[in-house]
Amino acid sequence: MSSDGAVPGSVRPGGRTARVRESVLRVAGDLLAERGFTAMDLGEVAIRAEVGKTTVYRRWRSPAGLVADLLTEMAETSLPHANTGSLRGDLVANARLVARTLADERQGPLFKALIAAAISDPETAAALHRFYDVRLTEWTPCVAAAIERGELGPRTDARALLSAVSAPLYYRFLTSGDAIDDAVAVTAAEAAATAAEAGLFRR
Amino acid sequence: MSSDGAVPGSVRPGGRTARVRESVLRVAGDLLAERGFTAMDLGEVAIRAEVGKTTVYRRWRSPAGLVADLLTEMAETSLPHANTGSLRGDLVANARLVARTLADERQGPLFKALIAAAISDPETAAALHRFYDVRLTEWTPCVAAAIERGELGPRTDARALLSAVSAPLYYRFLTSGDAIDDAVAVTAAEAAATAAEAGLFRR
Repeated sequence: MSSDGAVPGSVRPGGRTARVRESVLRVAGDLLAERGFTAMDLGEVAIRAEVGKTTVYRRWRSPAGLVADLLTEMAETSLPHANTGSLRGDLVANARLVARTLADERQGPLFKALIAAAISDPETAAALHRFYDVRLTEWTPCVAAAIERGELGPRTDARALLSAVSAPLYYRFLTSGDAIDDAVAVTAAEAAATAAEAGLFRR
Repeated sequence: MSSDGAVPGSVRPGGRTARVRESVLRVAGDLLAERGFTAMDLGEVAIRAEVGKTTVYRRWRSPAGLVADLLTEMAETSLPHANTGSLRGDLVANARLVARTLADERQGPLFKALIAAAISDPETAAALHRFYDVRLTEWTPCVAAAIERGELGPRTDARALLSAVSAPLYYRFLTSGDAIDDAVAVTAAEAAATAAEAGLFRR
């Protein structure tokens, strides 16, 4: 979220509506990170955000609706792709960003709560898939540039390659519980780059 | 679970106790796959398993205790590692097994429910981590054999390599929602093998 409350891409930019959205989504993220999706209550969100309950119920309707909008905002305000001049540089930057996000004391629990919510709720699952679609699409120019530079073959599947960079970090985060450190992030990026250079990840 | 009800590694093998465990864990898995962890009720499990409630409450104590024991049984009864004679053959077999499991109409929802439960409950998280530890350890001999055959360097980190095989499948399963097909499984295995051969995944 931008510090001036102007949410890029919002249907109703600026002003009171945007400020209300910013407050409500910040509280929703806090509650998700603290207690998870099943404890999400729109009335409590309204109180903590200091916004009228009617406004919250009318605008977001349900915890799933609120979480979907939070994911939309996270996609709108997430960091742009790197541009280091090399495939490996860009992929390492991507892996480090993912590793830092998952290790962050607010973002880590928030992502776990969002993923758990998506498992139990189809509307949240659709919103989560859109979020990852935006992130994978945002980083696609790094792969296009590597193809331009001749680092990768023209039929390289950017989405499969970028998924392979993040995947070992999410695997540790969600299943094995193994530690995620900088070496793991760098290895994830370099392994994916090596495989892509060898012609895996073809469209 | 083995078809004769004898649970390998059980503290009390065979007989009535093992049959009770088999019934209760099968019902627990069914309920998890159908409705998730938050809807898990020991009384309902007892009724559906046709086992006394007192037995269920005394032996498993809580939904988390029951899910932890289900994960223990899943680890005990899961399939052994492949032995195809080549690293790529073994890793492709591993990736296909994971892909098949995640796509299975009972196992897929069950794994999602277990992972969601682990997000909300530390006891379940510990049990989930033990399950993946058992699975990663089970397949470690495939990497040791590849080192023996000279396919990989002696310092190859089996756990990091095997995590890299499963990771792109779980990434699709839990975050991006992208389809998992046989080509994705084969690519995951071959990308990980290529990176390992290039000297990534070093201890």
